[in-house]
Amino acid sequence: MGRIIGVGLGPGDPDLMSVRARRTVERARQVAYFRKRGHPGQARRIVEGLLPATVVEYPMEYPVTTELPFDSPAYNDLLAAFYAEWANRLVALAQQEEVVVLCEGDPLFYGSFIHLYVRLQGRVALEVIPGIPGMVGCWSATGIPMTWGDDVFTVVMGTLPEAQLVHHIAQADALAVMKVGRHLEAVRRALARAGRLERAWLVICGTMAQQQVLPLAEWHKPTCPYFSLVLVHGQGRRPKERSR
Amino acid sequence: MGRIIGVGLGPGDPDLMSVRARRTVERARQVAYFRKRGHPGQARRIVEGLLPATVVEYPMEYPVTTELPFDSPAYNDLLAAFYAEWANRLVALAQQEEVVVLCEGDPLFYGSFIHLYVRLQGRVALEVIPGIPGMVGCWSATGIPMTWGDDVFTVVMGTLPEAQLVHHIAQADALAVMKVGRHLEAVRRALARAGRLERAWLVICGTMAQQQVLPLAEWHKPTCPYFSLVLVHGQGRRPKERSR
Repeated sequence: MGRIIGVGLGPGDPDLMSVRARRTVERARQVAYFRKRGHPGQARRIVEGLLPATVVEYPMEYPVTTELPFDSPAYNDLLAAFYAEWANRLVALAQQEEVVVLCEGDPLFYGSFIHLYVRLQGRVALEVIPGIPGMVGCWSATGIPMTWGDDVFTVVMGTLPEAQLVHHIAQADALAVMKVGRHLEAVRRALARAGRLERAWLVICGTMAQQQVLPLAEWHKPTCPYFSLVLVHGQGRRPKERSR
Repeated sequence: MGRIIGVGLGPGDPDLMSVRARRTVERARQVAYFRKRGHPGQARRIVEGLLPATVVEYPMEYPVTTELPFDSPAYNDLLAAFYAEWANRLVALAQQEEVVVLCEGDPLFYGSFIHLYVRLQGRVALEVIPGIPGMVGCWSATGIPMTWGDDVFTVVMGTLPEAQLVHHIAQADALAVMKVGRHLEAVRRALARAGRLERAWLVICGTMAQQQVLPLAEWHKPTCPYFSLVLVHGQGRRPKERSR
């Protein structure tokens, strides 16, 4: 029985992967990672310069991304077949030598790796090395505390219907909106309707070389890059000097 | 002007701190960390064996923990004075040499460090190294994917009034309840009222040597240790093999 390790590489800066992740990457004989066709892949980019020269690489290229609606049966079937096929290939590869699957952020938090993971369970020895989620790198980049005291913190996807976005945003004290890219206009409207637009920040490529951090109100384009996150920081309970 | 670095050490396993955190700890000349009186302190425990022999240590001992109600003016004043005094001391220490503040998890996510951080801003050069939050180590310990597709993920504190707990738990697809310890009974009731008790997991000391992971239903005590987290995993949208 072989072994497959899903390695969380953190938010982008290679120095932010864990000591265990770094050690695993530096000893890898076989690595697999997701990427869009024609792109190097964010996970692969994080480990640039760290892999042994003799490593064998398996880029797993998504068959579709935005060409089909994500809730269509055709999209479902294509993706399901893609994950099933790669799960089979990885199981075969792992019989010879350990396979390291490179994952941005944390492998079990909204990651493509999960779709492999559930198809691999019971077929190979599986290990997961947690990583700093992308959102943690992003709030760190703002330099503003994310949550205090008994703040309720909520993570929502920008792909949700706008009414649901408004509903969830309004209940949260602190907020992260992921998958914002092409849904920025709806996210902006939802934030405004929930009374949070003025306090929202936009973080693009958090912890990466091309990082940008700005109040969302200062970003005037209708969309933003794929690696973008909207944050609203909490303002919860805290000890205060009362004489101030 | 000196420098103070808040270092996120991750969930407990020293191998899960970032490469940058490890490097910073190994070169530290002065370290400060919070602890309860009479306890070694979790942050200090994580770096055991990593600090240089010549390091100077400043344990910052909480003046109160559970003896006073956390919403009383007396508690507020004691804590505010405690943080203000340590902020002053750290500013003074940083004039000589860099000070590393050791933080469990991520420094800007529900951490005591935040109370120093806001009191230090503008007075010294400040840096924060993000870390894997405790909850990420905990869901990793369950071996179950935390969030999928467009799941709404919410983090709540077990210290909230029970009605609020029920409200927030019922809206979330995936859930982490922190600060459970002495509030376990209320958390249990809130989960039951929101229809989530059967799917809840209890993780005690996630990623540490004494880690315990079990369905919450199998934990029969009225309280649980301080480093405990309750998790409900998401079950969101995912590509499915339809012929199965």
